[in-house]
Amino acid sequence: MSGGPAGGPPPDAATERLEALGARLPGAVLDLLPEPVGDDEVAHFAALQRSYPARGGKGLRGRLLLAAAYAHGADPADALPVAAALELFQNWVLVHDDVEDDSDERRGAPALHREVGVPVAINVGDAMHVAMWRALLATDAPWRDAVLHEFATTIARTAEGQHLDLAWVSEGRFDVDAAAYLAMVERKTAIYTVVAPLRLGAHVAGTPPDERFEAAGRALGAAFQIRDDVLNLEPDRGAYGKEFAGDLYEGKRTLILAHAFERLAPNDAARLQALLNRPRREKTDAEMREAHALIVSAGALASAQATAETLAAEGRATLLAALEAHTDASRRAPLVAWIDALVDRDA
Amino acid sequence: MSGGPAGGPPPDAATERLEALGARLPGAVLDLLPEPVGDDEVAHFAALQRSYPARGGKGLRGRLLLAAAYAHGADPADALPVAAALELFQNWVLVHDDVEDDSDERRGAPALHREVGVPVAINVGDAMHVAMWRALLATDAPWRDAVLHEFATTIARTAEGQHLDLAWVSEGRFDVDAAAYLAMVERKTAIYTVVAPLRLGAHVAGTPPDERFEAAGRALGAAFQIRDDVLNLEPDRGAYGKEFAGDLYEGKRTLILAHAFERLAPNDAARLQALLNRPRREKTDAEMREAHALIVSAGALASAQATAETLAAEGRATLLAALEAHTDASRRAPLVAWIDALVDRDA
Repeated sequence: MSGGPAGGPPPDAATERLEALGARLPGAVLDLLPEPVGDDEVAHFAALQRSYPARGGKGLRGRLLLAAAYAHGADPADALPVAAALELFQNWVLVHDDVEDDSDERRGAPALHREVGVPVAINVGDAMHVAMWRALLATDAPWRDAVLHEFATTIARTAEGQHLDLAWVSEGRFDVDAAAYLAMVERKTAIYTVVAPLRLGAHVAGTPPDERFEAAGRALGAAFQIRDDVLNLEPDRGAYGKEFAGDLYEGKRTLILAHAFERLAPNDAARLQALLNRPRREKTDAEMREAHALIVSAGALASAQATAETLAAEGRATLLAALEAHTDASRRAPLVAWIDALVDRDA
Repeated sequence: MSGGPAGGPPPDAATERLEALGARLPGAVLDLLPEPVGDDEVAHFAALQRSYPARGGKGLRGRLLLAAAYAHGADPADALPVAAALELFQNWVLVHDDVEDDSDERRGAPALHREVGVPVAINVGDAMHVAMWRALLATDAPWRDAVLHEFATTIARTAEGQHLDLAWVSEGRFDVDAAAYLAMVERKTAIYTVVAPLRLGAHVAGTPPDERFEAAGRALGAAFQIRDDVLNLEPDRGAYGKEFAGDLYEGKRTLILAHAFERLAPNDAARLQALLNRPRREKTDAEMREAHALIVSAGALASAQATAETLAAEGRATLLAALEAHTDASRRAPLVAWIDALVDRDA
């Protein structure tokens, strides 16, 4: 996505400016973290905090925030520190998520806890978390308070969504229907991926965020996550970075699985549940191929994709209506283009 | 310690008022956390965040903060929300620490990750962390900014100290000399246990904290931790809550061990290191008794205790000099009494 939405109109000056700012995000995130000075253990600790940000990442949420700030009339450069702090949030959450999910890899390298152990990784995540707050506290801009409160609310809701997901996994539960799954993923993913960037962009521009950003962001964020989950289970997507069907090895709850369990015959559903609930290290490729075949046979990939498209269309329409009330058409074009790219991405 | 320093003068009205406020701390901490409403998984998540605070705790740091605020001329009731936030910091750190150290128990009940698993416990700690920031952001008092910055600095330094400790454990290192140990424990424990409460008390009173609080608090906090470590290895201290020699089972780095390794003959030092580096679940009581005997034979308990007493005396003198410059004698008496109780405690 770093080149902007594919197939759209040629980028105008505003889009190019936002692209250039977005390209500065990785460096801006590193600037919020301590410098590894010297070669002692304190320097090593600083280096560990910089590990995930230094591996790159698409900067999806930060770029969306920059575009939202521009749409609301702000100089997007003023929003860069806030966008970097949001990306830092994403990074510390990933450090902890990777421990919680016992993930193997992150951005093409071993997950941090695989490199340094669980205890050190948890504490590195905590240090990154407080670095995020230090960064937000460092500004004296008039919007600082609104931004601080937005981060606090966003993180609390994200943790709540994460808890639902973790609790289902730890209880081996797959009796999660589509509505419960959507309520979870809206909290866990949609709030910080779409709702918060939209609202934070408005805050930086000194505009109270439109209330409709909540519903629009939840729908768009859920669509984004469902699309992500579908991509993970589509074997011919060579452009996509993650290992094929990694979600099945992780036992990750997805809308796809909710649809599959709703549709499979009882014995097939029981077989799928048994396969997915096996300890991660004992799962074989043959077993995960079998699970995948059951999911496909239920039509769950296609129906999840259809749900994502419906949510994306609803969210987009709600967002456009809200933006029309508060922003100039000339300034919201880059934001709308980003939203379209977010939910249409195929890589 | 909840009854105030033993053998001191009879409590005056100010001390009684501070005691009464201190007794409100556990409830004030719970007030900062979400209410468990209903019986769904979100309510369960709220209940988990309240688990450690609901188990009690001495409220040492919160009480010190209240006394420091009073000493600087503030109404200590104004400091109660800040004291509660500091106690909440202690609580979320304990949730993560217990995972990092794989502790069995906390405050007479299983450690949280033993009850709900590591993934859920990490996320509960994160939610408590953000609840702490929400609480601090909720006030509009003139000292809010100073307090926010103090928390940010304190947490960052505490995480740095925690990293040193975890890195030594994960590398099986016991070649940590007394100076390195003290530098670690000052960051890991002394900053948030003594320096931060002193400085936060001044902030709430609208007074810039005396620079000497840093050196005084580091010395007093280190003395407190060393005394704690000595108590853990003194078998006849029935009044002390923790299991005897739990630190040896955990392989915890202490000044006692630094002294022991500096003094033991090479073969005894190697034996001690081998005993302590055994996997925790394989350590037998006989082995830990042998390790304990080696430590005692090196005179390490007595010399650590002597170091603690020297640090306590130095820290106390520095603190008194600083307090004399900024506070009335009548208002600093409860603070001085608390400091004395902190470092003299034998239970």
